[in-house]
Amino acid sequence: MELTAQQIADILKGTIEGDPTISVTTLSKIEEAEKGSLTFLANPKYTQYIYATNASIVIVNNSFSPDKPVTSTLIRVEDSYSAFATLLDAYNQIKQNKKGLSKLASISASASLGEDCYVGEFVSIGNQVQIGNNVKIYPQCYIGDNVIIGNNTIIYPGVKIYSDNEIGNDCTFHAGVVIGSDGFGFAPQSDSNYKKITQIGNVKIEDNVEIGANTIVDRATLGSTIIRRGVKLDNLIQVAHNVEIGENTIIAAQTGISGTTKIGKNCLIGGQVGIVGHLVIADGVKIAAQSGVGSSIKEEGTMVQGSPSFDISTYRRSYIHFKNLQKIVTRLNKLEKNQKKP
Amino acid sequence: MELTAQQIADILKGTIEGDPTISVTTLSKIEEAEKGSLTFLANPKYTQYIYATNASIVIVNNSFSPDKPVTSTLIRVEDSYSAFATLLDAYNQIKQNKKGLSKLASISASASLGEDCYVGEFVSIGNQVQIGNNVKIYPQCYIGDNVIIGNNTIIYPGVKIYSDNEIGNDCTFHAGVVIGSDGFGFAPQSDSNYKKITQIGNVKIEDNVEIGANTIVDRATLGSTIIRRGVKLDNLIQVAHNVEIGENTIIAAQTGISGTTKIGKNCLIGGQVGIVGHLVIADGVKIAAQSGVGSSIKEEGTMVQGSPSFDISTYRRSYIHFKNLQKIVTRLNKLEKNQKKP
Amino acid sequence: MELTAQQIADILKGTIEGDPTISVTTLSKIEEAEKGSLTFLANPKYTQYIYATNASIVIVNNSFSPDKPVTSTLIRVEDSYSAFATLLDAYNQIKQNKKGLSKLASISASASLGEDCYVGEFVSIGNQVQIGNNVKIYPQCYIGDNVIIGNNTIIYPGVKIYSDNEIGNDCTFHAGVVIGSDGFGFAPQSDSNYKKITQIGNVKIEDNVEIGANTIVDRATLGSTIIRRGVKLDNLIQVAHNVEIGENTIIAAQTGISGTTKIGKNCLIGGQVGIVGHLVIADGVKIAAQSGVGSSIKEEGTMVQGSPSFDISTYRRSYIHFKNLQKIVTRLNKLEKNQKKP
Repeated sequence: MELTAQQIADILKGTIEGDPTISVTTLSKIEEAEKGSLTFLANPKYTQYIYATNASIVIVNNSFSPDKPVTSTLIRVEDSYSAFATLLDAYNQIKQNKKGLSKLASISASASLGEDCYVGEFVSIGNQVQIGNNVKIYPQCYIGDNVIIGNNTIIYPGVKIYSDNEIGNDCTFHAGVVIGSDGFGFAPQSDSNYKKITQIGNVKIEDNVEIGANTIVDRATLGSTIIRRGVKLDNLIQVAHNVEIGENTIIAAQTGISGTTKIGKNCLIGGQVGIVGHLVIADGVKIAAQSGVGSSIKEEGTMVQGSPSFDISTYRRSYIHFKNLQKIVTRLNKLEKNQKKP
Repeated sequence: MELTAQQIADILKGTIEGDPTISVTTLSKIEEAEKGSLTFLANPKYTQYIYATNASIVIVNNSFSPDKPVTSTLIRVEDSYSAFATLLDAYNQIKQNKKGLSKLASISASASLGEDCYVGEFVSIGNQVQIGNNVKIYPQCYIGDNVIIGNNTIIYPGVKIYSDNEIGNDCTFHAGVVIGSDGFGFAPQSDSNYKKITQIGNVKIEDNVEIGANTIVDRATLGSTIIRRGVKLDNLIQVAHNVEIGENTIIAAQTGISGTTKIGKNCLIGGQVGIVGHLVIADGVKIAAQSGVGSSIKEEGTMVQGSPSFDISTYRRSYIHFKNLQKIVTRLNKLEKNQKKP
Repeated sequence: MELTAQQIADILKGTIEGDPTISVTTLSKIEEAEKGSLTFLANPKYTQYIYATNASIVIVNNSFSPDKPVTSTLIRVEDSYSAFATLLDAYNQIKQNKKGLSKLASISASASLGEDCYVGEFVSIGNQVQIGNNVKIYPQCYIGDNVIIGNNTIIYPGVKIYSDNEIGNDCTFHAGVVIGSDGFGFAPQSDSNYKKITQIGNVKIEDNVEIGANTIVDRATLGSTIIRRGVKLDNLIQVAHNVEIGENTIIAAQTGISGTTKIGKNCLIGGQVGIVGHLVIADGVKIAAQSGVGSSIKEEGTMVQGSPSFDISTYRRSYIHFKNLQKIVTRLNKLEKNQKKP
């Protein structure tokens, strides 16, 4: 991709200050930008870099007024950050240009695919699968029998979707994601063996959900494990059977949610959090990283920390005292010594 | 799958109360069941749902005596929960109906497979591999050279088994499982580099072991990493080199076990637990979720919590005081103030 | 592989004590060695085993002087541990004998591969990919467009490398590794939805890096996520966007590093550690397992523990008092009671 300052200014409806014929081939941060790259200045903290950058073109706010000479060509716009984001999206569209069904994929005759889909090499698509329009399935993915996938969903290499699961529109699943593996359910037997409890439910993932690499969503024992619209799951997360995660909840990497727990909408859950099974977490709850949630949280917007977790400000106060426990014990020793004095 | 009430009653040796010709196509929970589905009532807490359910058929205990009219057809049996479990297994058998060796798989001429095996598309089976009867290997699995797999084992899509490992009968490995990757062993060199220690051992997995999605069992440096019969590992677990896990031990998701640690049989280990290397954990030990086990546990049936972990009831008492540390410090302040008074 | 005592002694320049024609087919630990296996004795703690071992051949130090009769054939060398390591490497070389480009791989016409490469079945190699000499790519790997891979790198089955990433020489990536998945970046919108921030940066991995199974390195938002030479990452680790990890740093399994954090060289980071984003960790820092690092660590060689973490010796002292909090509270109760007395 090679674009001139003039072409970019036309896209962004901006004004050029410098050489309209100068061209760029890549996007960079202002502090790392080399010749041939385009960058932007939005945060005033980074203003210093514009005087030293090697970027060929810098997008700046109309309000930007340099203190020293700038060698890069400038494109002035109302909001440089938004303008850059617009260009990022355009750049990404060009990257995501894969099209067509590979002859090296295995697609069941009973599967249906919409228009403009991409199916890469060594993908396996099972019987009665229904795939919408403009879906991109990268190499080596597995789409089991009876799976339904909506429009515009992107499935990166090596994703495994077991049979009978339902995926919405505009979702993105990263490499190694597993959808619909068996829930972890075993009934103890009299001889200390365990008997597997057959897991015949499925997973339902609504629209606009992003799931990070190697994250797992287990199928329900009966019924469905449900990920509501707008949920964002980071990498290496465990979502157990029959869990429900509410709309627009964000969960950071390596968190685990045990079976049948129901999480509200608009929650923010940190990394490496563990949540035990059969709980209900209210809307808008915030859980600090590495916390262990052992009981339901009923009040909306509650913030918790600790393992087991409790109110975050109480936790932080207790933790300061924990750091000082040696001093506390020393004070106790002294009190005891003084008290013994006649 | 479509079955009538009469067919189901025949399988379960039950009595029909209602329409013997009514048919079902799916299994559901009683509180979610729609027309066309079969459900059951075992737990008295759910009795209320039977009067409102849309299920076409409900399996109930012989002892069930309705207080109000029930619209569903009932099938009465001695133990409705067991009867439903029997049907679940039958349903699952029908689901697991994949058969034959895909022409799109790569199977070494020197590999041997037993009867009634399934090998899916894009599976790679190496030299001298020995596979028993009725083994199901889903698409995109990798079975390295010299691997041995027993009878009736199910290997879901994308499992990677490195060369020279041994898998027993009746095992289930979920998508993304890795068996036999190198143990994490590096010898520090004088120049602060590290030299890899070659890992030439293997992994031995006995019968009736279930391993969850994206869980990893590393190969031994020398000798074997061993998973004994009946062990159940949840998703995203790390089992390091030369670990041994005893019979029927259950481990929840995201737990990590460091090198050369030996875990007894019938243990229950929670999620996100970490166990350091070279320890011995006795039989029947229970480890609370998110604990960090830093030393061997010699007494059978011990229960521990904390990071580092210690006796669970002591931990819980300490943790209550931890939550109240602010109050404890306030009391200390007061004592000191009082003592200073003349 | 079958070798006689004479052949091994020739390789190691050692002296035989016993039968020079006896042969071995495998390598074992001294305490587990069976007939037909080769082992070694280096650590004096294991001397007892040499009198009972069934090993056909044992490599011992020149200085070894048995107290009782030994039935195995001995090969005496200056340093038995080093000699065994030399044999291990030779053994491994023979194991790693895969060669050639599989006809069942999909390799873009615009990709270039060096000499002596191995590309296994169902590998997908994209456009403009550049691969060096003696690179081994096992079955079912995905190498996206424009990826660059140096010489002698080994990529085990099912690794997924997204487009535009750069991998150095002499690296080893285990099964299920994901390189270059999108960083977890979403901008909150006014309607409580989130808008994905396009991640157009890449990942740069320098020479001699080993990455464990199912570990993930996300691509940068802009610029690069960087893993410096000699870094060793264990299994199931999360490395977020724009992280930088310094030379020869070692990180144990299931640790997570949040976005834009910069870790120094020669650090030792335990398992299940979490590090929050935008921090700087100095060289040579040691972080105990399960710690949560919440602020930058500026002093080289600092050792920390806890969640949030602080100085390790203070943590350990505080933790001892934490275990004894019941006793501390009992002492406080007694002090109060005594003080109230007239």
